[in-house]
Amino acid sequence: MNASATTCPLCLETGGLLVVQTPQWRVVRVEDAGFPAFYRLIWAGHVAEFSDLDAAQRLACIEAVTTVERVLREALQPTKINLASLGNVVPHLHWHVIARFDWDSHFPNPIWGEAMREAPDAASTQHRHLKVDGLLRRQRRDHASVSNMG
Amino acid sequence: MNASATTCPLCLETGGLLVVQTPQWRVVRVEDAGFPAFYRLIWAGHVAEFSDLDAAQRLACIEAVTTVERVLREALQPTKINLASLGNVVPHLHWHVIARFDWDSHFPNPIWGEAMREAPDAASTQHRHLKVDGLLRRQRRDHASVSNMG
Repeated sequence: MNASATTCPLCLETGGLLVVQTPQWRVVRVEDAGFPAFYRLIWAGHVAEFSDLDAAQRLACIEAVTTVERVLREALQPTKINLASLGNVVPHLHWHVIARFDWDSHFPNPIWGEAMREAPDAASTQHRHLKVDGLLRRQRRDHASVSNMG
Repeated sequence: MNASATTCPLCLETGGLLVVQTPQWRVVRVEDAGFPAFYRLIWAGHVAEFSDLDAAQRLACIEAVTTVERVLREALQPTKINLASLGNVVPHLHWHVIARFDWDSHFPNPIWGEAMREAPDAASTQHRHLKVDGLLRRQRRDHASVSNMG
């Protein structure tokens, strides 16, 4: 269960469709028709728990999670945002950032709970993630420009 | 679903067994035999999302969550810590902080997923939360003393 860095899937693979990457973390999109705006922020270093990070790393990590949350809220006006760092199967720090809608397959249950209805057709929801992917990339570019100027 | 502060259960009730309280947040223990160290950090103000907090509030909130995580790790050496802010049913910011064990009722599934085995007898696990409750209270007292001195 406690995969070392040499066998850890999140050290060896991207873990989803890469949207934004920095030296400290990357944001990937998870392809799941039930949840059309399901993102993961994966910490680059192979640590299991949030409290394995030092204070500056925790701040960088949670502020990046907050940025993803903000972009999802502004772009999609979801019913709720769900944040979770679980890692029971892959103990490499990663945050699920999921825009939930009252029509999604599981709402109001957690996405890991019982389904409440059928997932919508993927084609009918993909405009959502296309919009968010673009905004996350632009956010990152703007942030990088500001940092370079600073 | 979007309960206002006047009808919100987490504004009207404690939301679990009160362990520690500050002006900004409280930590309660959730009584669930399947998960003998299941805590919630409930933000005092009635906001729905983590990104509704300002930067200083987010830092205070996540550092308090980190303290609960650290106490759980040090006291119980769990297999994994699970953190989650969902709030689909009660959209008042609260963080689940759950010590997971490879013998608990759902491991490695999320606690909201399918059960894998029967929950252990509550009496056999209560020494865990008694220890953690005490450590969280002591941590808070020590922190308050330091703040008063500062």
